[in-house]
Amino acid sequence: MKRFHSLAELDPEEVAALLALATRLEAAPEPSALAGRILGLLFFNPSLRTLASMQAAMARLGGSSIVLTPGSGTWKLETRDGVVMDGEAAEHVREAIPVLAGYVDALGIRAFAGGSDLAADLADSGFGEMAAACPVPTVNLESALDHPCQALGDWKTLDDLGIPGNGKFVLSWANHPKPLPLAVPAAVVHMAAARGMEVVVLRPDDYALPEPVLERARRAAAVSGGSVRETSDRAEALEATTAIYGKSWASPLHYGDAESEARLRRGLADWCIDLDWFDAAAPGCRFFHCLPVRRNVVVTDAVLDSPRSAVIGQAHNRMWVQMAVLHRLLGGVR
Amino acid sequence: MKRFHSLAELDPEEVAALLALATRLEAAPEPSALAGRILGLLFFNPSLRTLASMQAAMARLGGSSIVLTPGSGTWKLETRDGVVMDGEAAEHVREAIPVLAGYVDALGIRAFAGGSDLAADLADSGFGEMAAACPVPTVNLESALDHPCQALGDWKTLDDLGIPGNGKFVLSWANHPKPLPLAVPAAVVHMAAARGMEVVVLRPDDYALPEPVLERARRAAAVSGGSVRETSDRAEALEATTAIYGKSWASPLHYGDAESEARLRRGLADWCIDLDWFDAAAPGCRFFHCLPVRRNVVVTDAVLDSPRSAVIGQAHNRMWVQMAVLHRLLGGVR
Amino acid sequence: MKRFHSLAELDPEEVAALLALATRLEAAPEPSALAGRILGLLFFNPSLRTLASMQAAMARLGGSSIVLTPGSGTWKLETRDGVVMDGEAAEHVREAIPVLAGYVDALGIRAFAGGSDLAADLADSGFGEMAAACPVPTVNLESALDHPCQALGDWKTLDDLGIPGNGKFVLSWANHPKPLPLAVPAAVVHMAAARGMEVVVLRPDDYALPEPVLERARRAAAVSGGSVRETSDRAEALEATTAIYGKSWASPLHYGDAESEARLRRGLADWCIDLDWFDAAAPGCRFFHCLPVRRNVVVTDAVLDSPRSAVIGQAHNRMWVQMAVLHRLLGGVR
Repeated sequence: MKRFHSLAELDPEEVAALLALATRLEAAPEPSALAGRILGLLFFNPSLRTLASMQAAMARLGGSSIVLTPGSGTWKLETRDGVVMDGEAAEHVREAIPVLAGYVDALGIRAFAGGSDLAADLADSGFGEMAAACPVPTVNLESALDHPCQALGDWKTLDDLGIPGNGKFVLSWANHPKPLPLAVPAAVVHMAAARGMEVVVLRPDDYALPEPVLERARRAAAVSGGSVRETSDRAEALEATTAIYGKSWASPLHYGDAESEARLRRGLADWCIDLDWFDAAAPGCRFFHCLPVRRNVVVTDAVLDSPRSAVIGQAHNRMWVQMAVLHRLLGGVR
Repeated sequence: MKRFHSLAELDPEEVAALLALATRLEAAPEPSALAGRILGLLFFNPSLRTLASMQAAMARLGGSSIVLTPGSGTWKLETRDGVVMDGEAAEHVREAIPVLAGYVDALGIRAFAGGSDLAADLADSGFGEMAAACPVPTVNLESALDHPCQALGDWKTLDDLGIPGNGKFVLSWANHPKPLPLAVPAAVVHMAAARGMEVVVLRPDDYALPEPVLERARRAAAVSGGSVRETSDRAEALEATTAIYGKSWASPLHYGDAESEARLRRGLADWCIDLDWFDAAAPGCRFFHCLPVRRNVVVTDAVLDSPRSAVIGQAHNRMWVQMAVLHRLLGGVR
Repeated sequence: MKRFHSLAELDPEEVAALLALATRLEAAPEPSALAGRILGLLFFNPSLRTLASMQAAMARLGGSSIVLTPGSGTWKLETRDGVVMDGEAAEHVREAIPVLAGYVDALGIRAFAGGSDLAADLADSGFGEMAAACPVPTVNLESALDHPCQALGDWKTLDDLGIPGNGKFVLSWANHPKPLPLAVPAAVVHMAAARGMEVVVLRPDDYALPEPVLERARRAAAVSGGSVRETSDRAEALEATTAIYGKSWASPLHYGDAESEARLRRGLADWCIDLDWFDAAAPGCRFFHCLPVRRNVVVTDAVLDSPRSAVIGQAHNRMWVQMAVLHRLLGGVR
């Protein structure tokens, strides 16, 4: 494995091997597997889980990490090509990335969607260009359109909880004070489809996922035997589901238009997932969220504090699957 | 030892064992005692000594650290229960703490007093609630009302300097541009009392320490054979003292009222500790301060640059005692 | 070696030994040479290369690093002596430096020029005073007037590329939106002179380097057999040169006067190094820059993206030479 950019780039056997390795590392520590190896972590956006779990993953394998935050301790970085750099950014990623690649053995990059130009964000070119400039293996720590560490950790969590491979998986839109990126919904809908699940995207009318996002998931479903569909019918969606994955995202119809988006959301406050959403669900149905989650906006305290909630386990699995990814990228020795 | 929240939670034998272990580690390195172990450090407030000495302590024992700063690189964290999270904080500590606990072997938390509600700060509930949400051992890196790493390092420093166990210990209020938390005075007055000293709190009339702070120290004195009293009579307090510990704190009578506090302090500029404060002291009397210290406001250059000053030694002892604490919490092997 | 403050403090044999050690470490890893050793990194200013390459250097030698950033996570630090500290800075470097020295085995400090008082910056007293307060070995990570890690890495890069020891070395001023410090030009002009090169400082009339900077370089040239001169004649300077080192710096004639400096620069936009600057150069002539570099202001995309550019190699050599420096300062064992 040369890079970890998206589950959509991996064939089913590779995903299965990563999950198996994650489970093995969870059971049997390999504290010297990556001794002397260095991971660079370049964060253009804030982080808690990724920041902590990536460092923990390296440390538990005997390696170390270097964290860089453009604009805070490190120069603001320019990402546009051909620009006359007389503004705020002191350095271009075309220098910064190859420079860092000389210091580290692998580089993780977090670069969220811009949130103003839907076509540009769907192309996910920002992360792609940076990764292309990097001669050492790169890990996507959340780009405009993907978050493969999250998706792989969620897959492991579904497995750990015994959620059937052909179970019903509802990705439900939820309310939020801000229009959020499409990365997690896109990654998660693909993941559940690739796992073979009956994927239902439940969302208000203006929140249909962009066609390329659905199309990518459908291609995975065609291989796995799963399916992907969208609906705004909450009762139908939640009927007999084995998983409810809550997540807010920006309306593709109002992308980059915060005012119109805010107007739209005023009528959507009941998209706060509560215990009664589980009334018609399958018995072992659990609540999933990638975190951070805004309590009592996205989901109620009652759900998060109940045994339904799987969110802490999801977060913990981030570390184990990332250990597997790093182990594979950096040729860990047992 | 399952947690390190306050010296007041430890019996005298446990404190003695920690001090002995700190001294042993200072003399004989154990560079592999915590190999592979990871310490999380969650800083809601700035730090120099704690930030550096905690990382150094882990590194010297073979472990590693992960630093997280809510609001700077990491999401702002909500601490209030039951709130509708539609404001600035993107994540609640009820998720953040258990999540981090899955990545690390112990978690240190710095969460200063709010400084507006005296009763709330005296209850020290913020740190307590976070620690209660954490399934791995927790270390108090300064809460609203305690700073046990500082207190234990100061105890070791008193021992190192040969200050008698039954000597006179003056905790003196000092001037400062800002109303500061009660954590260090509360921790230090308890520590000196628990060490068996004759503790005198010297302060202007409006700066009497809150009764629960004094009461906790008196309970420790009752066990140790020490004593605790307050005075505003500087000459009487400083007479024959073996230690002057300078520290500013907010007036409990004007708590949260910055304007009234500022008016009060205009008349207190002579509470800047100078060399003549030592004129009637015992011969080996030293000056102590937890740092950071504002030169020529809290204490003069003359004191800090004289052999009287013990402040650098205090800071260095932070590392050795924290190594002992981590060694005990994480089951260090020799 | 007890400290690494400036190449000008080292005799030629010491520089040669460091370069040889850097090359040896590049070829043959020594992953345990500094096992258990801790480097403190105190950054008063932003950094990408130094921040990452110093941590990478320690990690590759088996040691670890602690990063501190006054004003961001760590208290703002006062550097002036004798001041009444009732302002923003909560702590004085006279405490902070000796405190940190008790936690770490060596301390790197970055403290840029103030940029308002030329005489003060030429005296480079800020870094010097901090280093003098530090009982453990200190590394200059860029002070007001020096950047020895950069200079040593550049020397290695010149060697790696086979640029003749007696070749022509042009340090060319370049345009920039801001008046920048003299540290890199001062360090680089000295380095090239100490390497025995024919050093030509090419700059507009108002940008002559201060006499003490040139004088220090001339003293090095007198030992090495090199030479140092200044000119504003671009064609003459670039003729047959084997290296063009681009760098912007503030006009010593308008030091601290941003408005007058900005007026001056309006006419200097053609000091953006382009491919045609190499037309009369020696065949293997390369472009050098310390980075960060503002594309299409300091130098064009065409140069940076051409085989002329040596900037990535320069940055990578930072790590190897710093490993050599740390190895020597901390007594690395093979």
